[in-house]
Amino acid sequence: MDNRPIGVFDSGIGGLTVLKEIMEQLPNEDIIYFGDTARIPYGTRSKETVIKYSFQCINFLLSKNIKAIVIACNTASSIALEPAREKFDVPIIGVIEPGAKAAISTTKNNKIGVIGTSGTINSEAYQTLIRSMDKSAEVIGVACPLFVQIVEEGWEDTDVAMLAAEKYLMELKEHNIDTLVLGCTHYPILRYTLSKVMGKEVSLVNPAFETAKAVKEMIISNDMLKDSLDKPEYKFYVSDDPEKFRRIGGNFLRREIRSIEKINIENF
Amino acid sequence: MDNRPIGVFDSGIGGLTVLKEIMEQLPNEDIIYFGDTARIPYGTRSKETVIKYSFQCINFLLSKNIKAIVIACNTASSIALEPAREKFDVPIIGVIEPGAKAAISTTKNNKIGVIGTSGTINSEAYQTLIRSMDKSAEVIGVACPLFVQIVEEGWEDTDVAMLAAEKYLMELKEHNIDTLVLGCTHYPILRYTLSKVMGKEVSLVNPAFETAKAVKEMIISNDMLKDSLDKPEYKFYVSDDPEKFRRIGGNFLRREIRSIEKINIENF
Repeated sequence: MDNRPIGVFDSGIGGLTVLKEIMEQLPNEDIIYFGDTARIPYGTRSKETVIKYSFQCINFLLSKNIKAIVIACNTASSIALEPAREKFDVPIIGVIEPGAKAAISTTKNNKIGVIGTSGTINSEAYQTLIRSMDKSAEVIGVACPLFVQIVEEGWEDTDVAMLAAEKYLMELKEHNIDTLVLGCTHYPILRYTLSKVMGKEVSLVNPAFETAKAVKEMIISNDMLKDSLDKPEYKFYVSDDPEKFRRIGGNFLRREIRSIEKINIENF
Repeated sequence: MDNRPIGVFDSGIGGLTVLKEIMEQLPNEDIIYFGDTARIPYGTRSKETVIKYSFQCINFLLSKNIKAIVIACNTASSIALEPAREKFDVPIIGVIEPGAKAAISTTKNNKIGVIGTSGTINSEAYQTLIRSMDKSAEVIGVACPLFVQIVEEGWEDTDVAMLAAEKYLMELKEHNIDTLVLGCTHYPILRYTLSKVMGKEVSLVNPAFETAKAVKEMIISNDMLKDSLDKPEYKFYVSDDPEKFRRIGGNFLRREIRSIEKINIENF
Protein backbone atom coordinates (compact mmCIF):
# COMPACT_ATOMS: atom_id res chain seq x y z
CA MET A 1 0.00 0.00 0.00
CA ASP A 2 1.15 3.53 -0.76
CA ASN A 3 -0.71 6.65 0.36
CA ARG A 4 1.32 9.11 -1.72
CA PRO A 5 -0.47 10.89 -4.57
CA ILE A 6 -0.19 10.13 -8.29
CA GLY A 7 1.47 12.91 -10.32
CA VAL A 8 0.08 13.94 -13.71
CA PHE A 9 1.52 16.56 -16.04
CA ASP A 10 0.67 18.06 -19.41
CA SER A 11 1.84 21.04 -21.42
CA GLY A 12 -1.41 22.74 -20.42
CA ILE A 13 -5.04 22.03 -19.83
CA GLY A 14 -5.69 19.09 -22.20
CA GLY A 15 -4.29 16.53 -19.78
CA LEU A 16 -7.32 17.13 -17.59
CA THR A 17 -9.20 14.62 -19.79
CA VAL A 18 -6.62 12.05 -18.64
CA LEU A 19 -6.94 13.20 -15.04
CA LYS A 20 -10.72 12.85 -15.27
CA GLU A 21 -10.44 9.23 -16.39
CA ILE A 22 -7.94 8.45 -13.59
CA MET A 23 -10.30 10.06 -11.06
CA GLU A 24 -13.10 7.80 -12.32
CA GLN A 25 -11.10 4.58 -12.45
CA LEU A 26 -9.15 5.18 -9.22
CA PRO A 27 -11.68 7.23 -7.23
CA ASN A 28 -9.86 6.91 -3.92
CA GLU A 29 -6.42 8.15 -5.04
CA ASP A 30 -4.94 11.58 -4.32
CA ILE A 31 -3.66 13.30 -7.46
CA ILE A 32 -1.39 16.24 -8.17
CA TYR A 33 -1.74 17.82 -11.62
CA PHE A 34 0.78 20.17 -13.20
CA GLY A 35 -0.09 22.10 -16.39
CA ASP A 36 2.90 23.84 -17.98
CA THR A 37 0.69 26.64 -19.28
CA ALA A 38 3.55 29.15 -19.58
CA ARG A 39 5.39 27.01 -22.12
CA ILE A 40 2.53 25.48 -24.11
CA PRO A 41 2.59 24.19 -26.83
CA TYR A 42 5.28 21.52 -26.60
CA GLY A 43 4.44 20.31 -30.13
CA THR A 44 6.50 23.00 -31.86
CA ARG A 45 9.60 22.63 -29.65
CA SER A 46 12.79 20.73 -30.41
CA LYS A 47 13.32 17.24 -28.94
CA GLU A 48 15.95 18.54 -26.53
CA THR A 49 13.58 21.23 -25.27
CA VAL A 50 10.67 18.80 -24.81
CA ILE A 51 12.92 16.45 -22.80
CA LYS A 52 14.24 19.34 -20.69
CA TYR A 53 10.72 20.64 -20.01
CA SER A 54 9.40 17.16 -19.21
CA PHE A 55 12.23 16.49 -16.77
CA GLN A 56 11.42 19.78 -15.04
CA CYS A 57 7.76 18.75 -14.75
CA ILE A 58 8.82 15.40 -13.30
CA ASN A 59 11.24 17.06 -10.85
CA PHE A 60 8.44 19.32 -9.69
CA LEU A 61 6.05 16.40 -9.16
CA LEU A 62 8.77 14.42 -7.35
CA SER A 63 9.19 17.39 -5.00
CA LYS A 64 5.55 16.75 -4.05
CA ASN A 65 6.39 13.19 -3.04
CA ILE A 66 4.31 11.33 -5.66
CA LYS A 67 4.34 7.56 -6.19
CA ALA A 68 3.90 7.42 -9.97
CA ILE A 69 3.96 9.78 -12.94
CA VAL A 70 1.50 10.03 -15.81
CA ILE A 71 2.64 12.00 -18.86
CA ALA A 72 -0.73 13.24 -20.11
CA CYS A 73 0.73 15.10 -23.10
CA ASN A 74 1.06 13.45 -26.51
CA THR A 75 4.23 15.31 -27.50
CA ALA A 76 5.99 14.69 -24.18
CA SER A 77 4.87 11.04 -24.19
CA SER A 78 6.28 10.41 -27.65
CA ILE A 79 9.61 12.19 -27.05
CA ALA A 80 10.39 12.12 -23.33
CA LEU A 81 8.89 8.85 -22.00
CA GLU A 82 11.92 6.62 -22.63
CA PRO A 83 14.56 9.18 -21.50
CA ALA A 84 12.46 9.82 -18.37
CA ARG A 85 12.17 6.12 -17.58
CA GLU A 86 15.96 5.85 -17.84
CA LYS A 87 16.61 8.85 -15.64
CA PHE A 88 13.99 8.62 -12.90
CA ASP A 89 13.38 5.81 -10.44
CA VAL A 90 9.58 6.06 -10.40
CA PRO A 91 6.92 4.29 -12.50
CA ILE A 92 6.05 6.48 -15.54
CA ILE A 93 3.18 5.96 -17.99
CA GLY A 94 2.53 7.94 -21.20
CA VAL A 95 -0.59 8.26 -23.37
CA ILE A 96 0.65 6.98 -26.74
CA GLU A 97 1.22 3.30 -25.96
CA PRO A 98 -2.16 2.63 -24.28
CA GLY A 99 -3.93 4.38 -27.19
CA ALA A 100 -2.02 2.44 -29.84
CA LYS A 101 -2.67 -0.90 -28.13
CA ALA A 102 -6.39 -0.19 -27.84
CA ALA A 103 -6.58 0.76 -31.52
CA ILE A 104 -5.14 -2.58 -32.59
CA SER A 105 -7.42 -4.61 -30.34
CA THR A 106 -10.45 -2.60 -31.52
CA THR A 107 -10.09 -2.60 -35.32
CA LYS A 108 -11.60 -5.39 -37.37
CA ASN A 109 -10.70 -4.25 -40.90
CA ASN A 110 -7.19 -3.11 -39.89
CA LYS A 111 -7.88 0.45 -41.06
CA ILE A 112 -7.14 2.90 -38.27
CA GLY A 113 -7.41 6.68 -38.33
CA VAL A 114 -5.48 8.93 -35.96
CA ILE A 115 -6.33 12.58 -35.41
CA GLY A 116 -4.29 15.09 -33.41
CA THR A 117 -2.45 18.39 -33.54
CA SER A 118 -0.05 19.01 -36.44
CA GLY A 119 2.84 18.27 -34.07
CA THR A 120 1.51 14.88 -33.01
CA ILE A 121 0.46 13.79 -36.51
CA ASN A 122 3.69 14.96 -38.17
CA SER A 123 5.76 13.21 -35.49
CA GLU A 124 4.07 9.95 -36.64
CA ALA A 125 4.23 8.77 -33.00
CA TYR A 126 0.92 6.87 -33.08
CA GLN A 127 1.29 5.72 -36.69
CA THR A 128 4.80 4.29 -36.14
CA LEU A 129 3.92 2.56 -32.89
CA ILE A 130 0.71 1.02 -34.26
CA ARG A 131 2.52 -0.25 -37.38
CA SER A 132 5.35 -1.68 -35.24
CA MET A 133 2.77 -3.59 -33.16
CA ASP A 134 0.81 -4.86 -36.17
CA LYS A 135 2.51 -4.79 -39.56
CA SER A 136 -0.75 -5.38 -41.41
CA ALA A 137 -2.37 -2.24 -39.97
CA GLU A 138 -3.13 0.61 -42.35
CA VAL A 139 -2.87 3.86 -40.34
CA ILE A 140 -3.93 7.25 -41.65
CA GLY A 141 -3.11 10.37 -39.68
CA VAL A 142 -4.98 13.67 -40.08
CA ALA A 143 -4.04 16.89 -38.28
CA CYS A 144 -7.05 18.88 -37.02
CA PRO A 145 -5.57 22.16 -35.76
CA LEU A 146 -8.92 23.89 -35.14
CA PHE A 147 -10.20 21.34 -32.65
CA VAL A 148 -8.14 22.55 -29.67
CA GLN A 149 -9.47 26.10 -30.01
CA ILE A 150 -13.01 24.85 -30.56
CA VAL A 151 -12.82 22.92 -27.28
CA GLU A 152 -11.21 25.83 -25.42
CA GLU A 153 -14.05 28.08 -26.59
CA GLY A 154 -16.57 25.57 -25.25
CA TRP A 155 -17.91 25.18 -28.81
CA GLU A 156 -17.72 21.38 -28.94
CA ASP A 157 -21.43 20.91 -29.64
CA THR A 158 -21.91 23.76 -32.12
CA ASP A 159 -22.30 23.92 -35.90
CA VAL A 160 -18.73 25.23 -36.08
CA ALA A 161 -17.45 21.99 -34.53
CA MET A 162 -19.70 19.90 -36.77
CA LEU A 163 -18.60 21.61 -40.01
CA ALA A 164 -14.92 21.55 -39.06
CA ALA A 165 -15.17 17.83 -38.19
CA GLU A 166 -16.84 17.11 -41.54
CA LYS A 167 -14.00 18.83 -43.38
CA TYR A 168 -11.21 17.20 -41.40
CA LEU A 169 -12.65 13.68 -41.28
CA MET A 170 -13.74 13.39 -44.93
CA GLU A 171 -10.49 11.70 -45.93
CA LEU A 172 -10.79 9.14 -43.11
CA LYS A 173 -14.35 8.31 -44.10
CA GLU A 174 -13.24 7.79 -47.70
CA HIS A 175 -10.56 5.38 -46.46
CA ASN A 176 -13.26 3.38 -44.71
CA ILE A 177 -11.52 3.24 -41.31
CA ASP A 178 -13.39 1.42 -38.54
CA THR A 179 -11.33 2.81 -35.62
CA LEU A 180 -10.42 6.40 -34.83
CA VAL A 181 -7.78 7.30 -32.22
CA LEU A 182 -8.38 10.65 -30.51
CA GLY A 183 -4.67 11.52 -30.46
CA CYS A 184 -4.94 14.85 -28.67
CA THR A 185 -5.93 15.27 -25.05
CA HIS A 186 -8.55 17.89 -25.95
CA TYR A 187 -10.46 15.68 -28.36
CA PRO A 188 -12.46 13.48 -25.95
CA ILE A 189 -14.52 16.63 -25.26
CA LEU A 190 -15.50 16.52 -28.96
CA ARG A 191 -16.40 12.85 -29.02
CA TYR A 192 -20.14 13.23 -29.58
CA THR A 193 -19.56 15.49 -32.57
CA LEU A 194 -16.82 13.20 -33.93
CA SER A 195 -19.04 10.16 -33.49
CA LYS A 196 -21.93 11.86 -35.27
CA VAL A 197 -19.70 12.67 -38.24
CA MET A 198 -17.95 9.29 -38.46
CA GLY A 199 -21.08 7.19 -37.88
CA LYS A 200 -21.83 4.41 -35.42
CA GLU A 201 -19.79 1.79 -37.26
CA VAL A 202 -16.54 3.62 -36.39
CA SER A 203 -15.17 3.03 -32.87
CA LEU A 204 -13.50 5.94 -31.12
CA VAL A 205 -10.40 5.10 -29.09
CA ASN A 206 -9.82 7.50 -26.21
CA PRO A 207 -6.17 7.28 -25.09
CA ALA A 208 -7.13 9.17 -21.90
CA PHE A 209 -9.39 6.27 -20.89
CA GLU A 210 -6.84 3.65 -21.96
CA THR A 211 -4.07 5.44 -20.07
CA ALA A 212 -6.13 5.56 -16.89
CA LYS A 213 -6.73 1.81 -17.29
CA ALA A 214 -2.97 1.25 -17.62
CA VAL A 215 -2.33 3.40 -14.53
CA LYS A 216 -4.87 1.39 -12.55
CA GLU A 217 -3.31 -1.94 -13.61
CA MET A 218 0.17 -0.69 -12.73
CA ILE A 219 -0.91 0.68 -9.33
CA ILE A 220 -2.68 -2.56 -8.45
CA SER A 221 0.03 -4.90 -9.72
CA ASN A 222 2.70 -2.93 -7.79
CA ASP A 223 0.51 -3.02 -4.67
CA MET A 224 0.50 0.78 -4.55
CA LEU A 225 -3.18 1.50 -3.90
CA LYS A 226 -3.98 4.10 -1.27
CA ASP A 227 -5.34 2.33 1.80
CA SER A 228 -6.56 5.34 3.75
CA LEU A 229 -10.27 6.04 3.44
CA ASP A 230 -9.86 9.83 3.53
CA LYS A 231 -11.65 11.71 0.77
CA PRO A 232 -9.33 11.96 -2.26
CA GLU A 233 -7.41 15.23 -2.62
CA TYR A 234 -6.82 16.93 -5.98
CA LYS A 235 -4.23 19.68 -6.23
CA PHE A 236 -3.50 21.72 -9.33
CA TYR A 237 -0.37 23.65 -10.25
CA VAL A 238 0.29 25.74 -13.35
CA SER A 239 3.21 27.81 -14.62
CA ASP A 240 1.06 30.74 -15.86
CA ASP A 241 -2.23 32.53 -15.14
CA PRO A 242 -4.33 30.16 -12.96
CA GLU A 243 -7.62 31.90 -13.83
CA LYS A 244 -7.79 30.78 -17.46
CA PHE A 245 -6.93 27.26 -16.33
CA ARG A 246 -9.64 27.33 -13.69
CA ARG A 247 -12.25 28.66 -16.09
CA ILE A 248 -11.60 26.38 -19.08
CA GLY A 249 -10.53 23.45 -16.91
CA GLY A 250 -13.99 23.22 -15.36
CA ASN A 251 -15.34 22.30 -18.80
CA PHE A 252 -12.82 19.47 -19.03
CA LEU A 253 -13.38 18.03 -15.56
CA ARG A 254 -17.08 18.81 -15.26
CA ARG A 255 -16.36 19.97 -11.73
CA GLU A 256 -14.96 23.09 -10.12
CA ILE A 257 -11.19 23.40 -9.80
CA ARG A 258 -10.53 24.63 -6.27
CA SER A 259 -6.95 24.26 -5.08
CA ILE A 260 -4.77 25.81 -7.79
CA GLU A 261 -1.36 27.45 -7.46
CA LYS A 262 1.10 29.08 -9.83
CA ILE A 263 4.71 27.89 -9.59
CA ASN A 264 7.95 28.81 -11.34
CA ILE A 265 8.79 25.67 -13.29
CA GLU A 266 12.19 27.07 -14.32
CA ASN A 267 13.33 26.42 -10.73
CA PHE A 268 13.00 22.64 -11.15
CA MET B 1 18.03 58.68 -50.71
CA ASP B 2 18.77 55.37 -49.01
CA ASN B 3 19.11 52.07 -50.87
CA ARG B 4 19.17 49.86 -47.79
CA PRO B 5 16.20 47.53 -47.27
CA ILE B 6 13.32 47.99 -44.80
CA GLY B 7 13.24 45.39 -42.01
CA VAL B 8 9.95 43.82 -40.89
CA PHE B 9 9.47 41.31 -38.09
CA ASP B 10 6.62 39.37 -36.54
CA SER B 11 6.28 36.48 -34.13
CA GLY B 12 5.43 34.34 -37.14
CA ILE B 13 3.57 34.43 -40.40
CA GLY B 14 0.82 36.96 -39.70
CA GLY B 15 3.08 39.95 -40.33
CA LEU B 16 3.07 39.02 -44.00
CA THR B 17 -0.22 40.94 -44.31
CA VAL B 18 1.75 44.03 -43.24
CA LEU B 19 4.57 43.18 -45.61
CA LYS B 20 2.07 42.80 -48.47
CA GLU B 21 0.70 46.31 -47.86
CA ILE B 22 4.24 47.76 -47.72
CA MET B 23 5.09 46.00 -50.99
CA GLU B 24 2.02 47.59 -52.59
CA GLN B 25 2.53 51.08 -51.22
CA LEU B 26 6.32 51.14 -51.64
CA PRO B 27 6.72 48.86 -54.68
CA ASN B 28 10.33 49.79 -55.32
CA GLU B 29 11.74 49.09 -51.85
CA ASP B 30 13.82 46.08 -50.84
CA ILE B 31 12.46 44.34 -47.75
CA ILE B 32 13.80 41.81 -45.27
CA TYR B 33 11.20 39.89 -43.27
CA PHE B 34 11.90 37.91 -40.13
CA GLY B 35 9.25 35.55 -38.67
CA ASP B 36 10.11 34.24 -35.19
CA THR B 37 8.27 30.98 -35.88
CA ALA B 38 10.21 29.01 -33.24
CA ARG B 39 8.95 31.21 -30.41
CA ILE B 40 5.41 32.01 -31.55
CA PRO B 41 3.08 33.04 -29.92
CA TYR B 42 4.40 36.15 -28.19
CA GLY B 43 0.93 36.86 -26.78
CA THR B 44 1.29 34.46 -23.87
CA ARG B 45 4.80 35.57 -22.83
CA SER B 46 5.77 37.94 -20.05
CA LYS B 47 6.61 41.59 -20.84
CA GLU B 48 10.31 41.00 -20.18
CA THR B 49 10.34 38.08 -22.59
CA VAL B 50 8.52 39.97 -25.34
CA ILE B 51 11.00 42.84 -25.04
CA LYS B 52 13.96 40.45 -25.07
CA TYR B 53 12.63 38.61 -28.13
CA SER B 54 11.82 41.85 -29.95
CA PHE B 55 15.31 43.24 -29.30
CA GLN B 56 16.79 40.04 -30.72
CA CYS B 57 14.62 40.40 -33.85
CA ILE B 58 15.78 44.01 -34.22
CA ASN B 59 19.43 43.04 -33.70
CA PHE B 60 19.07 40.41 -36.40
CA LEU B 61 17.52 42.90 -38.85
CA LEU B 62 20.21 45.50 -38.02
CA SER B 63 22.83 42.87 -38.89
CA LYS B 64 21.28 42.92 -42.38
CA ASN B 65 21.90 46.65 -42.64
CA ILE B 66 18.30 47.87 -42.81
CA LYS B 67 17.24 51.53 -42.79
CA ALA B 68 13.98 51.23 -40.79
CA ILE B 69 12.12 48.66 -38.69
CA VAL B 70 8.45 47.70 -38.82
CA ILE B 71 7.12 45.71 -35.87
CA ALA B 72 4.36 43.79 -37.61
CA CYS B 73 3.24 41.97 -34.47
CA ASN B 74 0.47 43.32 -32.24
CA THR B 75 1.94 41.98 -29.00
CA ALA B 76 5.46 43.20 -29.74
CA SER B 77 4.11 46.58 -30.91
CA SER B 78 2.15 47.14 -27.73
CA ILE B 79 4.93 46.05 -25.35
CA ALA B 80 8.29 46.60 -27.06
CA LEU B 81 7.84 49.66 -29.33
CA GLU B 82 8.73 52.31 -26.75
CA PRO B 83 11.68 50.40 -25.18
CA ALA B 84 12.98 49.67 -28.69
CA ARG B 85 12.75 53.33 -29.73
CA GLU B 86 14.76 54.23 -26.63
CA LYS B 87 17.42 51.60 -27.24
CA PHE B 88 17.95 51.61 -31.00
CA ASP B 89 18.99 54.48 -33.23
CA VAL B 90 16.79 53.56 -36.21
CA PRO B 91 13.23 54.61 -37.13
CA ILE B 92 10.75 52.05 -35.75
CA ILE B 93 7.03 51.81 -36.51
CA GLY B 94 4.50 49.47 -34.87
CA VAL B 95 0.98 48.39 -35.92
CA ILE B 96 -1.13 49.56 -32.97
CA GLU B 97 -0.84 53.35 -33.34
CA PRO B 98 -1.70 53.55 -37.07
CA GLY B 99 -4.68 51.24 -36.50
CA ALA B 100 -5.95 53.25 -33.54
CA LYS B 101 -5.63 56.57 -35.39
CA ALA B 102 -7.50 55.23 -38.41
CA ALA B 103 -10.30 53.91 -36.20
CA ILE B 104 -10.88 57.36 -34.69
CA SER B 105 -10.86 59.14 -38.04
CA THR B 106 -13.24 56.52 -39.50
CA THR B 107 -15.95 56.24 -36.84
CA LYS B 108 -18.98 58.52 -36.99
CA ASN B 109 -20.99 57.23 -34.02
CA ASN B 110 -17.88 56.84 -31.80
CA LYS B 111 -18.57 53.13 -31.31
CA ILE B 112 -15.52 51.12 -32.25
CA GLY B 113 -15.05 47.37 -32.10
CA VAL B 114 -11.62 45.73 -31.88
CA ILE B 115 -11.05 42.04 -32.57
CA GLY B 116 -7.82 40.13 -32.00
CA THR B 117 -6.21 37.22 -30.20
CA SER B 118 -6.92 36.79 -26.48
CA GLY B 119 -3.46 38.24 -25.76
CA THR B 120 -4.05 41.43 -27.74
CA ILE B 121 -7.60 41.99 -26.49
CA ASN B 122 -6.76 41.27 -22.84
CA SER B 123 -3.75 43.61 -23.04
CA GLU B 124 -6.24 46.39 -23.91
CA ALA B 125 -3.52 47.91 -26.15
CA TYR B 126 -5.93 49.16 -28.85
CA GLN B 127 -8.71 50.01 -26.42
CA THR B 128 -6.44 52.09 -24.15
CA LEU B 129 -4.75 53.93 -27.00
CA ILE B 130 -8.03 54.74 -28.78
CA ARG B 131 -9.59 56.01 -25.54
CA SER B 132 -6.50 58.13 -24.80
CA MET B 133 -6.75 59.71 -28.25
CA ASP B 134 -10.50 60.33 -28.03
CA LYS B 135 -12.10 60.23 -24.60
CA SER B 136 -15.61 60.09 -26.05
CA ALA B 137 -14.91 56.85 -27.94
CA GLU B 138 -16.69 53.71 -26.81
CA VAL B 139 -14.38 50.78 -27.57
CA ILE B 140 -15.43 47.13 -27.29
CA GLY B 141 -12.82 44.40 -27.61
CA VAL B 142 -13.67 40.81 -28.52
CA ALA B 143 -11.12 37.98 -28.63
CA CYS B 144 -11.59 35.61 -31.57
CA PRO B 145 -9.11 32.79 -30.93
CA LEU B 146 -10.34 30.54 -33.76
CA PHE B 147 -9.61 33.02 -36.55
CA VAL B 148 -5.85 32.47 -36.67
CA GLN B 149 -6.25 28.74 -37.20
CA ILE B 150 -9.04 29.25 -39.71
CA VAL B 151 -6.72 31.46 -41.78
CA GLU B 152 -3.78 29.09 -41.42
CA GLU B 153 -5.99 26.25 -42.70
CA GLY B 154 -6.92 28.37 -45.73
CA TRP B 155 -10.56 28.20 -44.58
CA GLU B 156 -11.24 31.95 -44.70
CA ASP B 157 -14.09 31.66 -47.19
CA THR B 158 -15.80 28.57 -45.76
CA ASP B 159 -18.94 28.01 -43.71
CA VAL B 160 -16.71 27.36 -40.71
CA ALA B 161 -15.32 30.89 -40.96
CA MET B 162 -18.80 32.34 -41.49
CA LEU B 163 -20.34 30.58 -38.50
CA ALA B 164 -17.39 31.39 -36.22
CA ALA B 165 -17.56 35.06 -37.27
CA GLU B 166 -21.29 35.17 -36.57
CA LYS B 167 -20.72 33.83 -33.06
CA TYR B 168 -17.79 36.12 -32.25
CA LEU B 169 -19.21 39.31 -33.74
CA MET B 170 -22.76 39.06 -32.37
CA GLU B 171 -21.88 41.21 -29.34
CA LEU B 172 -20.34 43.92 -31.55
CA LYS B 173 -23.41 44.00 -33.79
CA GLU B 174 -25.63 44.38 -30.73
CA HIS B 175 -23.50 47.33 -29.63
CA ASN B 176 -24.11 48.97 -32.99
CA ILE B 177 -20.45 49.72 -33.76
CA ASP B 178 -19.73 51.42 -37.09
CA THR B 179 -15.98 50.69 -37.18
CA LEU B 180 -14.17 47.40 -36.66
CA VAL B 181 -10.39 47.24 -36.13
CA LEU B 182 -8.81 43.99 -37.36
CA GLY B 183 -6.39 43.84 -34.44
CA CYS B 184 -4.56 40.68 -35.46
CA THR B 185 -2.26 40.41 -38.43
CA HIS B 186 -4.05 37.30 -39.69
CA TYR B 187 -7.47 38.90 -39.90
CA PRO B 188 -7.20 40.91 -43.14
CA ILE B 189 -7.31 37.51 -44.89
CA LEU B 190 -10.81 37.11 -43.39
CA ARG B 191 -12.06 40.55 -44.38
CA TYR B 192 -14.66 39.43 -46.91
CA THR B 193 -16.24 37.07 -44.40
CA LEU B 194 -16.07 39.69 -41.62
CA SER B 195 -17.61 42.30 -43.89
CA LYS B 196 -20.43 39.94 -44.89
CA VAL B 197 -21.25 39.29 -41.23
CA MET B 198 -20.98 42.92 -40.04
CA GLY B 199 -22.80 44.43 -43.02
CA LYS B 200 -21.84 47.26 -45.35
CA GLU B 201 -22.53 50.02 -42.83
CA VAL B 202 -19.56 48.89 -40.70
CA SER B 203 -16.10 50.03 -41.86
CA LEU B 204 -13.22 47.64 -41.39
CA VAL B 205 -9.92 49.22 -40.31
CA ASN B 206 -6.90 47.21 -41.43
CA PRO B 207 -3.87 48.19 -39.30
CA ALA B 208 -1.62 46.47 -41.86
CA PHE B 209 -2.71 48.98 -44.51
CA GLU B 210 -2.49 51.91 -42.09
CA THR B 211 0.97 50.83 -40.93
CA ALA B 212 2.25 50.64 -44.51
CA LYS B 213 0.88 54.15 -45.05
CA ALA B 214 2.77 55.36 -41.96
CA VAL B 215 5.95 53.65 -43.18
CA LYS B 216 5.62 55.33 -46.57
CA GLU B 217 5.12 58.76 -45.00
CA MET B 218 8.10 58.25 -42.70
CA ILE B 219 10.37 57.03 -45.53
CA ILE B 220 9.40 59.95 -47.75
CA SER B 221 9.62 62.65 -45.06
CA ASN B 222 13.06 61.35 -44.00
CA ASP B 223 14.18 61.32 -47.64
CA MET B 224 14.96 57.61 -47.40
CA LEU B 225 13.38 56.29 -50.60
CA LYS B 226 15.42 53.83 -52.62
CA ASP B 227 16.67 55.59 -55.74
CA SER B 228 18.01 52.61 -57.64
CA LEU B 229 15.67 51.22 -60.29
CA ASP B 230 16.68 47.60 -59.71
CA LYS B 231 13.77 45.19 -59.22
CA PRO B 232 12.88 45.07 -55.51
CA GLU B 233 14.35 42.19 -53.51
CA TYR B 234 12.38 40.34 -50.82
CA LYS B 235 14.25 38.10 -48.41
CA PHE B 236 12.62 35.97 -45.73
CA TYR B 237 14.14 34.55 -42.55
CA VAL B 238 12.50 32.32 -39.95
CA SER B 239 13.62 30.72 -36.70
CA ASP B 240 11.91 27.36 -37.36
CA ASP B 241 10.85 25.08 -40.22
CA PRO B 242 10.83 27.23 -43.41
CA GLU B 243 8.52 24.83 -45.28
CA LYS B 244 5.38 25.56 -43.26
CA PHE B 245 6.12 29.27 -43.59
CA ARG B 246 6.58 28.95 -47.34
CA ARG B 247 3.37 26.95 -47.78
CA ILE B 248 1.02 29.04 -45.62
CA GLY B 249 2.82 32.30 -46.40
CA GLY B 250 1.91 32.05 -50.07
CA ASN B 251 -1.75 32.39 -49.07
CA PHE B 252 -0.93 35.61 -47.21
CA LEU B 253 1.18 37.23 -49.91
CA ARG B 254 -0.67 35.84 -52.94
CA ARG B 255 2.72 35.16 -54.44
CA GLU B 256 5.38 32.48 -54.08
CA ILE B 257 7.96 32.86 -51.30
CA ARG B 258 11.32 32.09 -52.85
CA SER B 259 14.34 33.22 -50.84
CA ILE B 260 13.83 31.84 -47.34
CA GLU B 261 16.41 30.88 -44.75
CA LYS B 262 16.33 29.51 -41.20
CA ILE B 263 18.47 31.35 -38.65
CA ASN B 264 19.22 30.88 -34.96
CA ILE B 265 17.62 33.93 -33.34
CA GLU B 266 19.12 33.07 -29.94
CA ASN B 267 22.48 34.25 -31.33
CA PHE B 268 21.28 37.85 -31.65
